[in-house]
Amino acid sequence: MTSDLRGRLLRAGEVAAERGIDTLLVSPGSDLRYLTGYDAKPLERLTCLVLPTDRPPALVVPLLERHVAEASGVADLGIEIVTWEETDDPYALVAAHIGSHAPTIAYDNQMWAEKVLAFADAIPGAKQTLAGEVIGALRMRKSDAEIDLLREAGAAIDRVHARIGEWLRPGRTEREVGADIAAAIIDEGHATVDFVIVGSGPNGASPHHEVSDRVIEANEPVVIDIGGTTAAGYCSDSTRTYVTGAQAPPDFRDYYAVLLEAQRAQCEYVRPGVTAASVDKVGRDIIAAAGYGDAFIHRTGHGIGMETHEDPYIVDGNGLVLEAGMAFSIEPGIYLAGTHGARIEDIVICTPDGSERLNRRPRDVGYLS
Amino acid sequence: MTSDLRGRLLRAGEVAAERGIDTLLVSPGSDLRYLTGYDAKPLERLTCLVLPTDRPPALVVPLLERHVAEASGVADLGIEIVTWEETDDPYALVAAHIGSHAPTIAYDNQMWAEKVLAFADAIPGAKQTLAGEVIGALRMRKSDAEIDLLREAGAAIDRVHARIGEWLRPGRTEREVGADIAAAIIDEGHATVDFVIVGSGPNGASPHHEVSDRVIEANEPVVIDIGGTTAAGYCSDSTRTYVTGAQAPPDFRDYYAVLLEAQRAQCEYVRPGVTAASVDKVGRDIIAAAGYGDAFIHRTGHGIGMETHEDPYIVDGNGLVLEAGMAFSIEPGIYLAGTHGARIEDIVICTPDGSERLNRRPRDVGYLS
Repeated sequence: MTSDLRGRLLRAGEVAAERGIDTLLVSPGSDLRYLTGYDAKPLERLTCLVLPTDRPPALVVPLLERHVAEASGVADLGIEIVTWEETDDPYALVAAHIGSHAPTIAYDNQMWAEKVLAFADAIPGAKQTLAGEVIGALRMRKSDAEIDLLREAGAAIDRVHARIGEWLRPGRTEREVGADIAAAIIDEGHATVDFVIVGSGPNGASPHHEVSDRVIEANEPVVIDIGGTTAAGYCSDSTRTYVTGAQAPPDFRDYYAVLLEAQRAQCEYVRPGVTAASVDKVGRDIIAAAGYGDAFIHRTGHGIGMETHEDPYIVDGNGLVLEAGMAFSIEPGIYLAGTHGARIEDIVICTPDGSERLNRRPRDVGYLS
Repeated sequence: MTSDLRGRLLRAGEVAAERGIDTLLVSPGSDLRYLTGYDAKPLERLTCLVLPTDRPPALVVPLLERHVAEASGVADLGIEIVTWEETDDPYALVAAHIGSHAPTIAYDNQMWAEKVLAFADAIPGAKQTLAGEVIGALRMRKSDAEIDLLREAGAAIDRVHARIGEWLRPGRTEREVGADIAAAIIDEGHATVDFVIVGSGPNGASPHHEVSDRVIEANEPVVIDIGGTTAAGYCSDSTRTYVTGAQAPPDFRDYYAVLLEAQRAQCEYVRPGVTAASVDKVGRDIIAAAGYGDAFIHRTGHGIGMETHEDPYIVDGNGLVLEAGMAFSIEPGIYLAGTHGARIEDIVICTPDGSERLNRRPRDVGYLS
């Protein structure tokens, strides 16, 4: 792992230099964990990896977190740990470490505004940009080891979907079902629950609905979209649509068949050399040809790795050419506002000669009766 | 609740105007939930409350989250919901809503850098500042209803501390004990687990240690600092130090007595009119006089409410004068690097005539034998 991290740090510095960036500034979050293995929480006190392209990196940490930072092993990566005490100005400390006049500095995409504005003040004349174009480009191309970790996460969430029949029944509320699912996400091999969507009946037509106190009725479509993060730091995300009984509404059966055809076609279409936008188009065309174009109101998918949503986004207009090692969701949906909806979501890896689906649960409607 | 939220929005606009801010921009997080009740996740797609000081507010949301935003009731607050589709530019949408030439815009303190830089591009000539000075000033002064919610959170975490003897035993790892505590944090009345610190032996001397695979020994001091967020959105945070047996190391007994004296003195000192810095000093002086000044390596405490760490910070140099309704931790610690440590933490409310401790578990060493 240490050699992986060394390689990532080296490569990040190289790509940054190619792009005219003098220093990457990376606060706690998945970028920091990806580059250094240090899994720190974003808090008000500044913790920041300072990665200049022409000098060794430093990790600025509050004094009270020194032992935690040391224990994460960052010093083995050649990163100097620089501590600050409660009444010090850590931004001045970073500015001193950067040194050069009017540098181009790049912030990790999720750095908090309070840190961004403090750096802008502390480093006058700096040109500011985002580190996402550098680190995101690295993170988007998964190693074999990372793909194995995504496979484990996929299998863990599949085990939860396999058990949905234990909890999803007419007469229960979405919230009750969601609480059982959340417990199972942990039990089946995740360290955290990231989201639980139980969209019953009309709530299934709201793609980012979570749970509510609505009582689930019999023979209703229910969209269940769930995910967590494993102890190794990799995310799962899979959606299946169930029906609470043996009889789905006829219009639901009709559009579900269209949706399934679209999702299958998209998964089979994925291979190196095609664009992200073209993957979106393959499914959107099928859905539109069947007359449901206006009911597919979101992009096809998002990259996944140490975050649930990361590059590459599978969306119209994204000309990114897919490469082996990229991992993303294929999750078209059809939503009839106020009535019901359906979504089918698998995580897919672009492989050297096609694609691999990490979620293996049946994609047909899950009738629970 | 709707009337509370209307008042908060109105007051935020007034305070912003007093400070020369034209528009507050608030992305998902506790500021947005505090002002509107909308509990959205921070994600890559822009969701943003646009709160001009001279016009009605708008909430810009991705189209696929329109129903969720509507269900949160923001329209009842006079907030217009403005949606954008996957290939639209939401920053241009916000810029058009702001309208005026070279405005002063204020970002919520935790807005992601990618949003901050996109706004800076989309609103040329804007003067950028932080909304924390406005919204933080409101959030720092809790209403009676908020104090009740903090009392509930405090009682919930006290119930977990009351059960520590069920799990903390020699021969178990910190991670095993931590997992049991995490489950109990949910069982005793929280919606999420925010952090679990089980610092046994030398790990107790690292204030932000979380858990490790270290096997806990007999008669060791163990620092347990835990917290979660209730369904209503308010946080708990309390630390007690336990000993796994009947016999603590003699030096631990000595400095624990000093620590307890300091923490008691600080809690009793709190009242309207004293500064945050002076609360810190009361405890620091006691600890220093006993010869442990260098072993108290962090500030005394932090505000708490919809986030675990928020204003006011109880730290040297903070001249803020305390007022009734402010809520914060009093958590001095003494840490002997490589040996062991201790911390005692209660959440305290500044009341009209003194203070109220929300955590009521005994503050003596918790001997488990």
